[in-house]
Order: sequence, then structure tokens, then C-alpha cells
Amino acid sequence: LTPTPSLPIDVNQNIFEMEYAVRGPIPKRAAELRNQGKTTIPCNIGNPQALGQKPITFYRQVLSLIEEPSKIARERRLKTLFHGNPKGFEGLNERDFISDYVLDLSDKILSYAPAGLGAYTDSNGPLFIRQAIASYIDRRDGVEPSDPTRSDPDSIFVTNGASESAKFIIDLLIGDENDGIMIPIPQYPLYSATIKKAGGTQVNYYPDEDNGWIFNTTTLEESLQAAEKKGIRVKAIVVINPGNPTGAVLDEQTIKAVIDFAMEHRIIIIADEVYQENVYGAKFVSFAKVLGEQKVPLFSLHSISKGFYGECGHRGGYLEIRNSPTADGTNVPLTDIILKQASVSLCSNTVGQLLTYLMVSPPAEGSEPYELFQQEKREILQNLSDKANMIRDAFKEMDGVECFGRIGAMYLFPRLNKLPVGTTDFDYCMRLLETTGLVTVNGSGFGQREKTQHLRIAFLPPKELLQNVLPEWIAFHNEYVNA
Amino acid sequence: LTPTPSLPIDVNQNIFEMEYAVRGPIPKRAAELRNQGKTTIPCNIGNPQALGQKPITFYRQVLSLIEEPSKIARERRLKTLFHGNPKGFEGLNERDFISDYVLDLSDKILSYAPAGLGAYTDSNGPLFIRQAIASYIDRRDGVEPSDPTRSDPDSIFVTNGASESAKFIIDLLIGDENDGIMIPIPQYPLYSATIKKAGGTQVNYYPDEDNGWIFNTTTLEESLQAAEKKGIRVKAIVVINPGNPTGAVLDEQTIKAVIDFAMEHRIIIIADEVYQENVYGAKFVSFAKVLGEQKVPLFSLHSISKGFYGECGHRGGYLEIRNSPTADGTNVPLTDIILKQASVSLCSNTVGQLLTYLMVSPPAEGSEPYELFQQEKREILQNLSDKANMIRDAFKEMDGVECFGRIGAMYLFPRLNKLPVGTTDFDYCMRLLETTGLVTVNGSGFGQREKTQHLRIAFLPPKELLQNVLPEWIAFHNEYVNA
Repeated sequence: LTPTPSLPIDVNQNIFEMEYAVRGPIPKRAAELRNQGKTTIPCNIGNPQALGQKPITFYRQVLSLIEEPSKIARERRLKTLFHGNPKGFEGLNERDFISDYVLDLSDKILSYAPAGLGAYTDSNGPLFIRQAIASYIDRRDGVEPSDPTRSDPDSIFVTNGASESAKFIIDLLIGDENDGIMIPIPQYPLYSATIKKAGGTQVNYYPDEDNGWIFNTTTLEESLQAAEKKGIRVKAIVVINPGNPTGAVLDEQTIKAVIDFAMEHRIIIIADEVYQENVYGAKFVSFAKVLGEQKVPLFSLHSISKGFYGECGHRGGYLEIRNSPTADGTNVPLTDIILKQASVSLCSNTVGQLLTYLMVSPPAEGSEPYELFQQEKREILQNLSDKANMIRDAFKEMDGVECFGRIGAMYLFPRLNKLPVGTTDFDYCMRLLETTGLVTVNGSGFGQREKTQHLRIAFLPPKELLQNVLPEWIAFHNEYVNA
Repeated sequence: LTPTPSLPIDVNQNIFEMEYAVRGPIPKRAAELRNQGKTTIPCNIGNPQALGQKPITFYRQVLSLIEEPSKIARERRLKTLFHGNPKGFEGLNERDFISDYVLDLSDKILSYAPAGLGAYTDSNGPLFIRQAIASYIDRRDGVEPSDPTRSDPDSIFVTNGASESAKFIIDLLIGDENDGIMIPIPQYPLYSATIKKAGGTQVNYYPDEDNGWIFNTTTLEESLQAAEKKGIRVKAIVVINPGNPTGAVLDEQTIKAVIDFAMEHRIIIIADEVYQENVYGAKFVSFAKVLGEQKVPLFSLHSISKGFYGECGHRGGYLEIRNSPTADGTNVPLTDIILKQASVSLCSNTVGQLLTYLMVSPPAEGSEPYELFQQEKREILQNLSDKANMIRDAFKEMDGVECFGRIGAMYLFPRLNKLPVGTTDFDYCMRLLETTGLVTVNGSGFGQREKTQHLRIAFLPPKELLQNVLPEWIAFHNEYVNA
């Protein structure tokens, strides 16, 4: 027997070659710099709480009680004692006690889920959570419970973030390298990586940057025809709205174009709508709403990681399916197969599930937590909007930098028109990091039209930080492009 | 444009054909019965808290505080007030307040993870958690920090349960249908399903049931040679210890046999050790300990879902890699590629991560939570052992039922020697469900030697329930096999 200090083994080439820029070389270099004691400002990823955004109080009060249910009765007892003798509780006041609304809600949740957070749930998530999600979707889209287009709890899956939903669908749709999925360029690398891993073909389509990243059926037809010429069967189209990395908010006409296109070519729509609450001024319109009664298969994704909540670490989200296709040659709906996929991991994490429930069940108007909840929500969204504008304003002082689209999501994706010949946006972002500590992601990490260069920046750092670093960035930029 | 009420679409055949018995037809029928108002006893899955097992107090106290960090200071204040005037806190006593140990620990955790639970972490999990895991592994195996075989935090991944770890490895190892992974028969369907989904080949080996499910290299060689004859390249061997579904605890000699075999054939060991704390009387020996300095690649899995904690819903666990192979033709270690795989989902859920930290960091001897923690642990494990014995005793009264192996995990896997000709263990389990409400899983769901029949039962229901249902089962059984 000979020892094998480092056994060579052939691995899955798709996984070996798969790329994931958001956590690629630039963030890795940033980690090295931090280990050397340097300060970096991580704008490479939409991770608001890592940059000081506070969690929504209401959510965390509920989670805290459900993790330790004996605290509900204790809290009621403490409140009674406090109200009987406030002076005996020096240093504490009413605000330091949990509202009856939250205590009652916690009791209600435990009545739905008596085993609490420690038990596996149904693989698609607990029914009461799926019902709450369906009801949220209908309220959002102005759909009555009697409407045939109402959301169906049995077509909803509660998942570990939206990433898991995307994987379920893409893994299921791809049989071999001739199966294609259309994705916008630029796109969020979850899609390119998952298609690559599944062994399928990424079919690019190109939203119109100068026109605010909207597009029409002609754009989509061109892309489809080019793929079909190569023998690719296009099975689905991914749309990210509001956009990632572009941050752009689509208009209703573009959404209609996607639906028409999908209906004509009998393909599935995958609508990544995780930034639906991150619109600043513009209005979000859901694919489900525009779809109405049209029988186009729609898989739409949402997440607790974004919005004003930013509960990334808790990994929660949902997938809603409308007009589920059936597996060819059978009458098995894809919803059934996705349930089987979910069952292999047993269930998504229960705390993420519960946060998803809370996301779709905000405190009722007039209830005790309502005012604080609304205030926190307003402040976070206003703050995000302010910061987006600060950065967009800074672009105006940078030579050859343009940024298009209505602002949404958590990102800006400026085009860098004047990079020195022979340099790439990757080089630029790396130098930007070394010079200012700003961690961004090069446009090539998301895909971009040939001969264009970009970067993506998440507008999440505290304003004070931005105020300091933006002038440094402007100075760096103008020197870099004019060197 | 024609509507497509149910668009047929060809799907990935591996996923379409994949099976997952633990959540298959029998549990589905049980759900129907429950919806009809009938009582069922879910023993189809290792989900202790769904069957009344209480969470460990210490764990939940910490989780509750970390979800809502402002409660730490409030708790300190409340304790001071209580100690100053216990009479002012009628109905509450010292036990109702959180120990300083837990408060201090919570502060410490937040100092390591100042963004709390709401932020994405490093994709392999926070360093302080990986360090705690490494230290736990070394303590468990009696390895000194100076020893070259000590565990390396950079070779550890904190994952969403152990399922995610298994998927990372299997997806990476399988390139096409000629790549094989050896799995024991019977096996936990996570493995067969994941191999099937990845498009690889499941290579069966057969532990010796009558000998307590142990095995030797001859068993493994036979299996390997049969596979090689069919052109299959065997890349890894899965060992589940303690066993699932068998519940059997392997001896050190069997583990040595696996290591010798893996070394000789230059294959990887995947050691599923999630039941390492579920041994009743027998002693658990880890693969890492037996491996020592031998340079065989070892991927070992652990989970917060089992043991005495049973925190299934929180989806936490870890993967530890030793002697990582490199991707063929490169010097890229598999650890790097697994990190990239993990990064596509950004990170595992932070509450599962934190529970994994707590699992490997029990309260110190003599600390305030120590006694209660030990008592809860003892009672849960004793209770599990008692229930396993109650069921094994019942088997003695069932005609032609035999059960082998040292008891471990949460399962018994009796062999049903006298099923009527033409009936299967699936038929038996379905009838058992209809007659007694007991939800078990047929042996064929896990694989079994030809011409044998089994079932798997999780020994988790409360004793009172078992006391009632076991006589019913005995009566059902003896009638069924003698009909």
C-alpha cells in the first residue's frame, strides 16, 4: 500500500469550470487585505446587515420567542408585574416589553406549528405559511379570493433563499447540453452557474442598456433564433426584475413582451422578483399580475434576503408556480417533481420559513408594532434611495461613466466608457479595491455586450462611509482613465 | 396564440425517475388519513421534535438571544432587579432567568459575528464556528493540538444539514454514468437519489445482516470487481455509521477494512457519521480516528438533526475533509471546488450554523447550565434506548421477525421472514399503517438483498404511544403472516 499524499481524481467538468464572480477573485483579494489589517467596504454583494442595516424589530421579536416558547408566558408575567409596579423596574420602560400583538402572534404560530422550529416540516413548507404567501401575492396584485387567477398554496414552495428555487427549476429543465435557458446579459451569476452545473446551454439575450435595460420581442426572437440555429431547444426564459446587476425596474410593456414571446414559443418564464420591494420612485409590477388568465407557465421567486428586511443569513424565500407544465408523455405536473426534489433535502430551514411568513404578514394597521415597523421600513428604503443617488451623482464627476435605468434593487451598474486600451473592468475593480478599499464586481462577472465594460456596486455602505470614499473613487477614476 | 393549459415539457429523466421512499407513497397515504381525522404515528423519519422530544434548553436560550440581541442587556437588568427584590417578581424564580454563562456566551458570539444572524457569512461558514468544530473533532478523537492529524478549520464546511454536504461531494465526483459510488445495501435514499440525479451509477455492497451488518474487504472487493466488469470507475465508498436504516453500530475492524480497501483502490471515503451520539451501550469510533496519518481522502458528515438534540428543522451540519484529492491534471484541491459550489448558494443558514457551533461547544463542566444540559441529554438518550428495546422486545412476539446489530441511530430494521407469498414489504407497511396508524418505510425503499423483506421504524414516539400500539402491531403481524 502506497500513501497518496494528494490523490488526483477526475471531477465533474461543469462544476470545475463554473464561475461565480460575486464571490470570486476580487472579494478574495479583499479578504486578504482585511487580514492585513486594511479596511475594505464590501459592495460586492447585497448583504445589508453586514454593512450595518438593523434587522426589523418586529421580525426578530417573533423569532426570538418562537425559538424559546417558554419566554412567551414569562413575558406576559413580567408585563403584568411591570404594569402593577413600574417603579420596581427601574431602567426599563414599556418599550422594553414585547407587545401583546407579538405575544399573541407567537402563540398563534405555535398553534399552527406545535413542534416549533426543531422539526422537519413538509418538504414544500408548512401549509399555514404557504397560505399566507398566497394571500400576500393576491393582495399585492389586487386579486380577489374569488378570482380564478388567485394564488394556490399547493403551487408554492418555501425554500432556502431564492437560490434553491432557481436550482430546482433549472436542474429539472435541463436534460443535456442541447437544452437552453435564456438569460439576460448582464445577469446574476446564480443563473449562469446553475445552467453550467446542470450541463445545459446558456442562451443570452440583450436588454437595451441605453434605453434603461428594457427590451422587446425582437430582442428575444433574435436570441431564440440564434440558439435554434445551433440546435438548442430553448425551454425557459429568466427575467430579473428589478434587475441584478443592473438595478433597473422593468415597465409593464417589457413584461408583456416576455409573456407574448413565451406563449408563442411555448416556453416557461422564470421571474426572479426578489427585489420587488426595492423600487425607489418607480412602481413594481409582478409577472403574475400582467399574466392574468393567460396560460403561460410562470415560476416566480421571492426572498427574505432583500427588500427592506435584508435577512440574508436566514436563507428564506419562496417559489410560486402558475400553469405548471407536465412532464412530456405523462400527466405528472412539474410541481410534483419539484416536491420530490425538495424532499431529498427534507425541508428548508424553519427559521427562514418563519421569516418568509412574517415578510408576507406585516403587522396590521393600528396594531402596537405597526408604527415602529413602518418607520423602520421607511427609513431603510429612504436610506437606500439616498445612497443610490449619492453614488449616481458621483458618476457624473467621473470621466466617461454612464448609468442607465430606473433605480431598483440594491445595485448600480455603470458603464465605463473610457478605460485605457488593453485594460479590463476586472483590472479597474482590482485597482479600485487596492486604492480605496471599495469591493465591487467587474461587469464581465455578469456578462456584458462585447466591447463594453461595467462594474456593479451595491449601494449599501453607511452614508458617512460613502461620503468619504466617493471623492476618493472620483479621483482614482479620473486618474485611471486619463493615465 | 393558443393557450397551453398544460404545456408538456421534457424534463431531466434522472430527476423524474429518482425515488425517495422516506417521503414516498406510505407517508403520503398517512397524510391522507390524518386529513380524514385519523391518528397516525409517524415513524417513517428521524424527526424527534415532531414526536414530542423537547429542545435542549441551553441551545434555545442562546438562539433566542442572538435573534434579538437587545434582550441580553435587558435580561441582565431584569436579573439585577430580581436579585434586589425577589418578592417584586411574584410567580417567577431564579430558574426563569437566563444564566450569566448563557448571557456571556451570547455576547461572545456577537463579538465574533457582529452582524448577527441576518448577514450572509463566508460560504464555508464563519471561521470561529469552523475552529470550534475542529476542536470538537480533536477532543472526540483524543487528538492533541500539536498532532499532525488534528482537524483543520479550512477543510470544514458548515452546511444546511448533512444532505447538502452529501450533494456537494456526489455532484462533484460524478461526470457521467460510468462514474460509480459504492453504497451499502440497505442505504439511506439521500445517496441513491443524489447519485441518480447526478447521472452516475450506484454500486451496491452488502453488509452482513446476520452478523450485525459488519463487513470485510472481501465484500467490498466483490462489489468493486462486479462494477469494474461493467466499465464503471468507482470513485468513492459511502459508509453510514451508525447505520441508517439499519441502526447498526460498526466495529473498528470494519472501519479498518474500509480504509484498507480505499487506500488500495485509491478511492474516497464518504463517512456519514450523523448518528455518532446515538449509540446505546456500544462505542462510536470515528473514521478520522481510525484513519490517523494514513493518506486516504475522507469526507465525513455530521448534523444537528440527530444525536440527543434532534434539531432537524434548523438544518445545520458540517462536512470535514481530510487528505483532499486534487482535480485530475491540476493542483486544485477538491476543497476549493466545494467552496465554489457552496458560494453559489452564498452560505448555509446562520441559525443552523449557530446550532452547529453550540453542538460542538457544550456548557463547561461546573458552569450554570451544565447540570440541566447533562440531565436533558441523559434523559433523551435513555428514553431512546428504552424505546428501541421495547420495540425489539415486541419483535420477539412477531412470527418470523429478526433484528440484527448493535443498536444505534434512531432506527430498527427488522427482517420479515414470513410474509405471505406474493406480498411485499411495501404491502405490509401499507396495511400496518391502515390497521394501526404506524407509519414505517418498506425495506425496498432502502434497497435490500434479493428475496429478503424488511421495514424501518424510527424509535421516536412517546413510550405511552408505543405501549398502546405495539400489542396492536404484534396482533396485526401474526394475523398478516399467518393468513
